[in-house]
Amino acid sequence: MAESTVTLENTLIALVEGKKYTALRDILITMNSADIAAIFEEIAEEKLPILFRLLPKELAAETFVEMEPDAQELLIRGFSDNELKDVVDELYVDDAVDIVEEMPANVVKRILRQADPEMRKMINEILQYPEDSAGSIMTTEYVNLRPRMTAAEAIKRIRRTGVDKETIYTCYVTDGNRRLIGMVSIRTLLLAEDDAVLEDIMETNVISVSTLEDQETVARMFDKYDFLALPVVDQEDRLVGIVTVDDAMDVLQEEISEDFEKMAAITPSEKPYFKTGVFETWKQRIPWLLILMISATFTGMIITSFESALAAQVALTAFIPMLMDTGGNSGSQASVTIIRGMALDEIELSDMLRVVWKEGRVALICGLTLAACNFVKVLLIDRVSIYVAAVVCLTLAGTVFVAKLVGCTMPMVARRLGFDPAVMASPFITTIVDAISLLIYFQIAAALLRI
Amino acid sequence: MAESTVTLENTLIALVEGKKYTALRDILITMNSADIAAIFEEIAEEKLPILFRLLPKELAAETFVEMEPDAQELLIRGFSDNELKDVVDELYVDDAVDIVEEMPANVVKRILRQADPEMRKMINEILQYPEDSAGSIMTTEYVNLRPRMTAAEAIKRIRRTGVDKETIYTCYVTDGNRRLIGMVSIRTLLLAEDDAVLEDIMETNVISVSTLEDQETVARMFDKYDFLALPVVDQEDRLVGIVTVDDAMDVLQEEISEDFEKMAAITPSEKPYFKTGVFETWKQRIPWLLILMISATFTGMIITSFESALAAQVALTAFIPMLMDTGGNSGSQASVTIIRGMALDEIELSDMLRVVWKEGRVALICGLTLAACNFVKVLLIDRVSIYVAAVVCLTLAGTVFVAKLVGCTMPMVARRLGFDPAVMASPFITTIVDAISLLIYFQIAAALLRI
Repeated sequence: MAESTVTLENTLIALVEGKKYTALRDILITMNSADIAAIFEEIAEEKLPILFRLLPKELAAETFVEMEPDAQELLIRGFSDNELKDVVDELYVDDAVDIVEEMPANVVKRILRQADPEMRKMINEILQYPEDSAGSIMTTEYVNLRPRMTAAEAIKRIRRTGVDKETIYTCYVTDGNRRLIGMVSIRTLLLAEDDAVLEDIMETNVISVSTLEDQETVARMFDKYDFLALPVVDQEDRLVGIVTVDDAMDVLQEEISEDFEKMAAITPSEKPYFKTGVFETWKQRIPWLLILMISATFTGMIITSFESALAAQVALTAFIPMLMDTGGNSGSQASVTIIRGMALDEIELSDMLRVVWKEGRVALICGLTLAACNFVKVLLIDRVSIYVAAVVCLTLAGTVFVAKLVGCTMPMVARRLGFDPAVMASPFITTIVDAISLLIYFQIAAALLRI
Repeated sequence: MAESTVTLENTLIALVEGKKYTALRDILITMNSADIAAIFEEIAEEKLPILFRLLPKELAAETFVEMEPDAQELLIRGFSDNELKDVVDELYVDDAVDIVEEMPANVVKRILRQADPEMRKMINEILQYPEDSAGSIMTTEYVNLRPRMTAAEAIKRIRRTGVDKETIYTCYVTDGNRRLIGMVSIRTLLLAEDDAVLEDIMETNVISVSTLEDQETVARMFDKYDFLALPVVDQEDRLVGIVTVDDAMDVLQEEISEDFEKMAAITPSEKPYFKTGVFETWKQRIPWLLILMISATFTGMIITSFESALAAQVALTAFIPMLMDTGGNSGSQASVTIIRGMALDEIELSDMLRVVWKEGRVALICGLTLAACNFVKVLLIDRVSIYVAAVVCLTLAGTVFVAKLVGCTMPMVARRLGFDPAVMASPFITTIVDAISLLIYFQIAAALLRI
């Protein structure tokens, strides 16, 4: 798949270079908008408007939606008012909102001026909802039916009005006050008798979300319930929009990228890798590096306070990195497992004791295994005294035990305090565990080696 | 959302305890199968068969699909042949396959005996495909149309046969040799004139995948193209099944969990956290801890070989943890960014030089910022000599620079060699960077402090 796209890309670029626009158009119209957008992104900016004008209206609008904000802005600035209107008219309202959110104010003004009044009203409505809320990712273009309609009437209505709706596969039934009272899939409508009345065949236990619900919660509901669309209601239970599965998938990917970044001590960004500048990337990374570097001061202080012990037993220093790393890795394993388990709702805050009980036992046997293997290795390869070996291995077992307990509890404590558990991944766990492992090390060394 | 489920759960458990089965049934039938399954999982095993029998046939089958394999097995063992047949008859074939894959052989035999012959044939067909392939996650229940049909005929056919199909929203058009020649959505059919012929209105540029395509690639295609279903074809381009968006989402979540685990040096498991035993969890974690512990031997050897230098300048030891941690964190930031970028297809192997060029510059300014801050801190707080401060800060800048380059290249090298880039996350990067940072440290110390 990836291979064939790359070859096609080269062919298309060659056609662009050779100005073979008719041949180019013939190929482009057979392609999917996502693929066209990917190829357009690779082509020199100044060619973009020419290429874009080759596409038929609908495909042009679909491709436009798939492009990156900077390319979109470039295109809009090159569009005549009529061209812009053609694109805006073809957009679904949620896509229009996504675009408007990324554009500078003067471009937004131009877009809204070209949108027809109804579209403009819907865009403005959705823009009012807070970022990352269900309201901000919903569309207001859905099929709305009445409880007294028959299946045949409903299908007729869908045929008449369906073109402009983002999905016609799930239809919503509302009462006179716009309150959501039921849901009916087009499948049910098609398989029902023509004269079946909606209120008899509709699903009345409709799962809906409030406009202010967090978008991640909404996305996870799609995952859990296998929905194609989910209705969004206001405080009075009135239907105001729907979220569709494609947008839910985008949110899921975005949130997962955010988790990955947080877990690596990076301030999340929504931009693709090559779209962030060097300085921007630096800004995402440096605060956490600084905080973690300063936190490591404690570890340094612990070593300093045991300086004389280390001077007496220089061999002890050589094991510091191994002890710290193994502790860090053990803690990270536990914390990442818990972070992911909480994200998937497999682990609740109320499970704290069960988690500690399980991790404690895992930690015990992990620690003992590692200590045993290390004891053999240290005696055979490093050839230290049996006392030093004992100190190192006891520390190892203790560190792994503490590290796993710290690793499994910190993400839950973070969630409890209202923070994202993802920040309690490797970097922070490692910093905490480092200090603890050194304390254990020097205490055991002092006791066993009398230094 | 989460809150209300928990309260409902307690109510239902109370009803179970009190044996109020009529009330229980009245509540259960208003609920979604995913929620019922979640509550059933919390209830004592011996009550499960009674509760399950309260549910109407269709809801019972839907709930069954949502349950964990061990609960499913328990239920099947309690079912009479007729009860088992009722459930199996209601299952979609891909769900049936998922269940069969998890059951011991004797349970599988019972299931297949109760399935009707066509279902049995379809199950066996899907079971032949390799694990994690498109074939293994597809369903063979789809709507198949002919190019010469009219829209009205197509709708009639869907009404007649649609009940058993997993989705009727996307229909596929095949020629006499079962070769896939087009695709038409029910939306297009409904919005078309009754006498429009399918070959005129169908989409002929159909994106399909081969039966052997990796399931993760398939899942990412849903994300890219916003499909509801994707056709699966064999070597001769004949349509053999479809993958639906709900299964694609499950695959995506599964693969992401795997990535998280690999990045934390854990052997991936498909089971939820509380379903893996202590020993199983130990087995997932211990191999990597051992490998990483043994790898840390190099770091120990480096320290040992500079033992005399450390003895001469004991202050140097105190900075080892900070240098190693900062190097590890810097490297992890780069590696996680690249791993995620590759997973999202934002970064290709051919981008190696661009990545190195960007990370190199980010590394340079990150390193200089950290070194500058640290220089001030070390002089003011740790009060070491200006020479030691210089050694520490030069090392810091050098380590961050090297760490980020190692961090960004290792995942790409892993992919190049055919490994999963996710294994090149924090734990391995940290181990490599530790050794490098110590080498830099002691070289600079030797040069500047003449030890």
